[in-house]
Amino acid sequence: MEPVNIGVVGLGTVGGGTVDVLHRNSAEISRRAGREIRVSRAAVRDLDRSRSCDTSGITLTNDPFEVANDPDVRVVVELIGGETTAFEIVMEALEQGKHVVTANKALIATRGNEIFRAAHERGLVVAFEAAVAGGISIIKILREGLAGNRVKQLVGIVNGTSNYILTGMHERGSDFEPMLREAQALGYAESDPTFDIDGVDAAHKLTILASIAYGIPLDFSAVYTEGIGTIQGKDVSYAEDLGYRIKHLGIARRRGNRVDLRVHPCLIPETHLLASVDGVMNAILVEGDAVGQTIHYGAGAGANPTASSVVADIVDVVRTLTADPGNRVPHLAFQPTALTSKDVTPLGDIECAYYLRLLALDRPGVLAEIARILGENNVSIEAIRQQGTKNNDGNVSVVIVTHKTREMSMTRAIGAIEALPAIAEPVMRIRLDTLEA
Amino acid sequence: MEPVNIGVVGLGTVGGGTVDVLHRNSAEISRRAGREIRVSRAAVRDLDRSRSCDTSGITLTNDPFEVANDPDVRVVVELIGGETTAFEIVMEALEQGKHVVTANKALIATRGNEIFRAAHERGLVVAFEAAVAGGISIIKILREGLAGNRVKQLVGIVNGTSNYILTGMHERGSDFEPMLREAQALGYAESDPTFDIDGVDAAHKLTILASIAYGIPLDFSAVYTEGIGTIQGKDVSYAEDLGYRIKHLGIARRRGNRVDLRVHPCLIPETHLLASVDGVMNAILVEGDAVGQTIHYGAGAGANPTASSVVADIVDVVRTLTADPGNRVPHLAFQPTALTSKDVTPLGDIECAYYLRLLALDRPGVLAEIARILGENNVSIEAIRQQGTKNNDGNVSVVIVTHKTREMSMTRAIGAIEALPAIAEPVMRIRLDTLEA
Repeated sequence: MEPVNIGVVGLGTVGGGTVDVLHRNSAEISRRAGREIRVSRAAVRDLDRSRSCDTSGITLTNDPFEVANDPDVRVVVELIGGETTAFEIVMEALEQGKHVVTANKALIATRGNEIFRAAHERGLVVAFEAAVAGGISIIKILREGLAGNRVKQLVGIVNGTSNYILTGMHERGSDFEPMLREAQALGYAESDPTFDIDGVDAAHKLTILASIAYGIPLDFSAVYTEGIGTIQGKDVSYAEDLGYRIKHLGIARRRGNRVDLRVHPCLIPETHLLASVDGVMNAILVEGDAVGQTIHYGAGAGANPTASSVVADIVDVVRTLTADPGNRVPHLAFQPTALTSKDVTPLGDIECAYYLRLLALDRPGVLAEIARILGENNVSIEAIRQQGTKNNDGNVSVVIVTHKTREMSMTRAIGAIEALPAIAEPVMRIRLDTLEA
Repeated sequence: MEPVNIGVVGLGTVGGGTVDVLHRNSAEISRRAGREIRVSRAAVRDLDRSRSCDTSGITLTNDPFEVANDPDVRVVVELIGGETTAFEIVMEALEQGKHVVTANKALIATRGNEIFRAAHERGLVVAFEAAVAGGISIIKILREGLAGNRVKQLVGIVNGTSNYILTGMHERGSDFEPMLREAQALGYAESDPTFDIDGVDAAHKLTILASIAYGIPLDFSAVYTEGIGTIQGKDVSYAEDLGYRIKHLGIARRRGNRVDLRVHPCLIPETHLLASVDGVMNAILVEGDAVGQTIHYGAGAGANPTASSVVADIVDVVRTLTADPGNRVPHLAFQPTALTSKDVTPLGDIECAYYLRLLALDRPGVLAEIARILGENNVSIEAIRQQGTKNNDGNVSVVIVTHKTREMSMTRAIGAIEALPAIAEPVMRIRLDTLEA
C-alpha cells in the first residue's frame, strides 16, 4: 500500500520530536499502521533557522496554510499552539477534507465544539491525545477502554510545573518562589509561567477529560480554577505532619445530576498512590462503576512523550484511511503479515542483580570463601549482612545482594557455594530489579 | 440504528458481570456506541440454576454452539475459560462470520495465533482486552496508545493472588502458607491455586503483552516461569531491611536483538511506584523510547473490572460494524448527537474536607471561639494543632483539619473567624480530599 503523506505545522519542541519519532521508529510504525507514514510538508516560522530534527525529504514553507492546502497531504498535524492561527489552520484543513491531529489543549478546550462539528459533518477525524498528559493515552483510555463504565470521578495531576514545585517544597522544605525559579531555570516552566501556576493549563485539560468522561460539551468557563501561588512551605510541612501531601489537582466528580469541575491545590492522604507522583510526572485516577479505581501515570510533557501521543493519533487516523478489515487496529498491534519472531533470551544470558539467602556455619573464613567464589564468577557484592544470631547447629543466616551479573554466572557461583561444607542448606536466590530498561 | 444482538457463552462471575454492566449502563453505552447493545442469547451450564444477573429478554440454552450459530447474533462473547471447548466455540463463531470477544488468557496465549489467522482471513475482530489485567485497558494502551514507540521494557504485577499473598507477608510478617489459605478463604485464589502460585497465569498474560509490545507471534512456551511458593516470610523482611519489596513480576525486556521473557519473584526498590501496588491490584509499567516510563494501575480481576473490559471490547466491535464515519470512535467518546449538558456544581455546593491555617493571638479562649464558629456553621473538626511557638506579636500558627462540609459553610465560617479581633491575618484554606468518589 502507498505511503501516507503527513503535513506538520510547527517544528518546535513537539513538532521536531514528532518528526524524530516517525523517522527513528518508521519500521515499527509501518508494521503497526499497515503502510508507511511520511512527513512530506512542514510549516516553520523561520525558514533560515537550523532545526533540531532531520528535515530531509520534507518540503518546508513558512506559510502554514500551504500545508493545510497541499493536495498530497492527507493528515495535517497542528503543533503551533495558541487559539487563533491554530484554529484557522485546523478549520482550513477540515475544509480541504484532511484529517487533523493536534496537541493543542487550549484550542480543544475553548473551540473544540466548533471544530468537532466541522469534522463530523465532513466525516473527518480530529485526534488530540497529545493535548492532555503527554504520552499517558488518557483520552483513549477514557473514550474506549472505559466505554462500559459510568465514571464516578476523575482526579488528575496534570500540570507538571505545579507538581515539580510542590514536590520540591515537600522534599526540600523550599518555599514557592525559589522552586518556581528553579523550574524556570530547568525549562519546566515557561518564562511567563502564569498558565501553569494559576491553573489555567490544568483547567484546559480537565475541560477535555470531563467532556469525554461524562459526555458533556466542552465548557472551559465552567471550571473553577485556583493555582498554587498562595501555598507556602509551611503549609506543605504542616500537611505532612498530619499525614497528607499537597498536590495540585483537577477534579471532575459525578454528584447526583451535577458534576464537580474544579482545579485547585488539595491535601490528599500520603498513603495514596497519587501522593507519590512526584516531579514533572502526571497521573490521572479514573474511577468507574465497573472498573473501580484505575491510575495512569507517565510524563506529562516534553518533546518525546508528547510526540508519542501525536504519532499514536497519526497511526489511528491512518488505520481509518482505508476501510478494509486489514486496516482496522490489528489484533496484536502489528499487521498480521508483519509479525516477526524474535529470539527469547535464554535464562542463562539474562542480566540481573540477585538477593541470596544462605544458612552458613558461623565461623571465621566462611564469608571470605563465599566472597571468593562470587568474585571468581564475576559476581560483585553490593551488600552482605548476617541476619539474627546462630541457631542450635551453629548456623547463621547470611543475606547477600549482588550487583548485576549474568544468570549463568550466578548459577555457577551458587553451585560452588552450595558445595562448601560450611553451607547447611540450598541457597535461596531471588532476582532483584531496579526497573530500568 | 437497529440494536446489535450479542450472544454470551458462560454466565458465571464475568458473564454475569457483563450482563449486569450492559444493563446498568445501557444508556451511556448506547450513547458511546451509537446504537443499543442487547444480549439476546446466552449459554449456561445448567438451565435450572438461579443466576446472579437479570436474564429477562435473554434466550438461554445449555449448548454453547447454539449461540455461535444463532443467525441473529453478531458478536459472540466467550466467557467459559479453558482451552478446549472455548477454542471450538470461538472457531465456530468465526466460521459463522461473527466477531468474538473473549476474556480467556489461556486460550489467547496458547492458541491465539490460529484464532487470529482465522479471524483475519474472514475480516473479523477477536477482542481480548479482558484477558490481561482486568479493567486496566493495557492491550489498547500498548496496541494503539503507544503505537509510535519502540518498547524498551514491560514489567507487570499481573497476578492478583500472588500479589495479595506477598502483600500480606510484607504488611503482617505472615508466611506463605497462611496467606495462601486466607486468599482462598476470601475467594481471591481458586481452590486449586496452582496456576496463580506457580506463575502460569502470569505467564499467559506476559505472552500476550509481549506479543503486542514487540510484534512477535504468541509463544507461551518461550516464557521462563517461576512462582512464589518458595518465598519465606524472612525473605520478605530481609529484603525490606535492605530497602526492597518482593513482587511477583512478568518481565519482557528488549535486549539487543533478543527479548527477555520471564515471570518470577523479584526484589524491586521500595521507593518505586510499583512497590506500592498492594493487595489484589495489578499494575503494568511500559517503557517506550518516546514516552519514557508509564504505569497503568487497577483491579486485575473480579466480575465488574473484567466486565468493564469485555464491554469496552463489545463497544469497539460494534463501532466497526458500520463503516460510516459516524461509527468511528467519536471524538468525545459519546456520539456527537448524544452529548448532553450537565449542571456543574456551583463552588459553594461542593463538599470537601479542609485544611485551615490561622495566625491567632496566643491567649485563652481564642481556640474555643474558633471552634464555636466552625460548629455554628456545621463544620466539624478532625484535628486542631498549634504549630511552633508564638512570634513577637504574641501570635501563633494554628492548623485545623475539618471533616467534610459544604464549601459555602466553610466560607461563611472563615469570614466569621477572620472578623475575630484575635485573628492576625487572612485564613489560609486548602481543600482536602481522600479521593473517594
